[in-house]
Amino acid sequence: MELTSRPFTLELRHRFTLASGSRTTTPVVLVELRHDGHTGYGEASLPPYLGESQASVAAFLSNIDFTKYPDPFRLETILADIDALAPGNHAAKAALDIALHDLVGKLVGRPWYDLWGFDPAKTPYTTFTIGMDTPEIIRQKVAEAAEFKMLKIKLGGANDRQLIEIIREVTDQPICVDANQGWTDKHFALDFTHWLAERDTLFVEQPMPKTMIDDMAWLTERSPLPTIADEAVQRLPDVVKAVGVYHGINIKLMKCTGMREAHKMVTLARALGLKILLGCMTETSCAISAAAHLSPMADWADLDGALLIRNDLFDGANIIDGKITLTDAPGIGASLKRDQGSGIRMRDEG
Amino acid sequence: MELTSRPFTLELRHRFTLASGSRTTTPVVLVELRHDGHTGYGEASLPPYLGESQASVAAFLSNIDFTKYPDPFRLETILADIDALAPGNHAAKAALDIALHDLVGKLVGRPWYDLWGFDPAKTPYTTFTIGMDTPEIIRQKVAEAAEFKMLKIKLGGANDRQLIEIIREVTDQPICVDANQGWTDKHFALDFTHWLAERDTLFVEQPMPKTMIDDMAWLTERSPLPTIADEAVQRLPDVVKAVGVYHGINIKLMKCTGMREAHKMVTLARALGLKILLGCMTETSCAISAAAHLSPMADWADLDGALLIRNDLFDGANIIDGKITLTDAPGIGASLKRDQGSGIRMRDEG
Repeated sequence: MELTSRPFTLELRHRFTLASGSRTTTPVVLVELRHDGHTGYGEASLPPYLGESQASVAAFLSNIDFTKYPDPFRLETILADIDALAPGNHAAKAALDIALHDLVGKLVGRPWYDLWGFDPAKTPYTTFTIGMDTPEIIRQKVAEAAEFKMLKIKLGGANDRQLIEIIREVTDQPICVDANQGWTDKHFALDFTHWLAERDTLFVEQPMPKTMIDDMAWLTERSPLPTIADEAVQRLPDVVKAVGVYHGINIKLMKCTGMREAHKMVTLARALGLKILLGCMTETSCAISAAAHLSPMADWADLDGALLIRNDLFDGANIIDGKITLTDAPGIGASLKRDQGSGIRMRDEG
Repeated sequence: MELTSRPFTLELRHRFTLASGSRTTTPVVLVELRHDGHTGYGEASLPPYLGESQASVAAFLSNIDFTKYPDPFRLETILADIDALAPGNHAAKAALDIALHDLVGKLVGRPWYDLWGFDPAKTPYTTFTIGMDTPEIIRQKVAEAAEFKMLKIKLGGANDRQLIEIIREVTDQPICVDANQGWTDKHFALDFTHWLAERDTLFVEQPMPKTMIDDMAWLTERSPLPTIADEAVQRLPDVVKAVGVYHGINIKLMKCTGMREAHKMVTLARALGLKILLGCMTETSCAISAAAHLSPMADWADLDGALLIRNDLFDGANIIDGKITLTDAPGIGASLKRDQGSGIRMRDEG
């Protein structure tokens, strides 16, 4: 197998504001893995607050000798080897994992939902994320999101209730709330959760700091809405720790090193009675398509990442009337848009 | 998809004696699932003490309308539907699961270890089972088992220590011990486990009755040998209950309804830090080959079922110098022996 990569900058349609900051772009690294006449595509999405960068991904990739692996089907061994090279680097590892899955799927001529035995008709609706903004812009964003069956609202600011009230003035779409660890008092959190439940909210994601485990378990026991771990659950060993603390977990390829570990987390979560939210970063339709193959097993999906950017390089899984819609193309089912030429390696930035 | 089946009787090479009884045959039902020019083979093995029979399998199969499932790749949905038809019937369900996996693997032209991403070079050695018998027969059985790297000894009788001593007189092969719930006093069990540890034993399987959970946890905390759940862990929801009670679990296709659930149990066990023993009943090389695809993820294997019978109908995964050896044929990698004609449906018994 032969690996190439290039950095690329995703341009966001709207300035994106979280409790942690604001930005208009997301850096990514796109990878290609070639073997036996087939090309597997992968992507690392690198929101700056998570600590990886295009430079750290390039450094990580430079340590991998893919000529050591004559057979791409040996996913368990190859991905364990790569994981053991260095701690962290979750997005870099996810890019390789996605490219390997794409390659293997193309070698057998089947999409991954077929190889996993999932039903592509059972994909969920996705949320559409409304970032913090001025009331005027929020009204505009909600109007643009009319086709979606549910909205995701990022909280953790000073005007959270006002934000929800603005949204409820203009739409009765159900909302999902992501507090991004913003609530540090359990009584405040429970009170807010009841207030949200009265306003047609589906779940509350990471309401309290991930380290406040006892308070979080207290909240989950009493919460009228499902509580979902995001920052608290990164990888497979974190799943069992969520039992009794949260009602469910948010699985994202960029947190958990890719499709193989995400698939294991899905198996574990369902066996342990945890709800599954399938999430993403801002990503092209490459990484979004990869995640979409798991979505028939998710209770909810938040796979709007490619919709939030202006310069998606890939065609792949679509959102049609708010529902995730898989293609029947082999592998992850993503292909370079026609104006991207014959390969991402031919269009290096800068 | 079109399903056919036939009953068949496996003839054991040696009379097989457990704490629960003795027998010279094992009834099985062989199934064929045909779709798009391919045939998937499956098998239900029916040791009488587990409660299923050729008649109960036939009755269960008669309730399934495979014409409802135009696409064999929808494993998650099809197998959940079948599981929901009636409780129990684990071996009948396993036969269908194995046939479906064989069919899907043949449709993509790949063995299941490829689709699961496992390395066929990483298969473990298998134990070879020595049943209870007279000292003379036991010596003869041990001599016949010289190629195996470890022996499995079934205990639970009155002369357990004598049996081990006879074996230790004639071989220094490591042994694995299956007490089949035979020990009801935890102090006796701990004492016996220490005695076994001094005689080169690898693990102790189901030392105490499956209902004695607290006593079993007490034993596991103190045991010098890994303790493995067999009767206590049948299916996926049982895996998490083994944590803190046993060091590991014995996964058998005939207990857990087949390859798909066994694969999930493997994922769960590894994530929860449980050791994995991959076991079997007396089975042809059809069901043994199916299980063998999971064996690269097992700590130990006990897949000698096809070696214990005289009339194996299938070629498939082999035991070579004690090591499980997978074929690179697609699906489960089992094929009817040449003298079986073109299909099992052509040779109905009786």
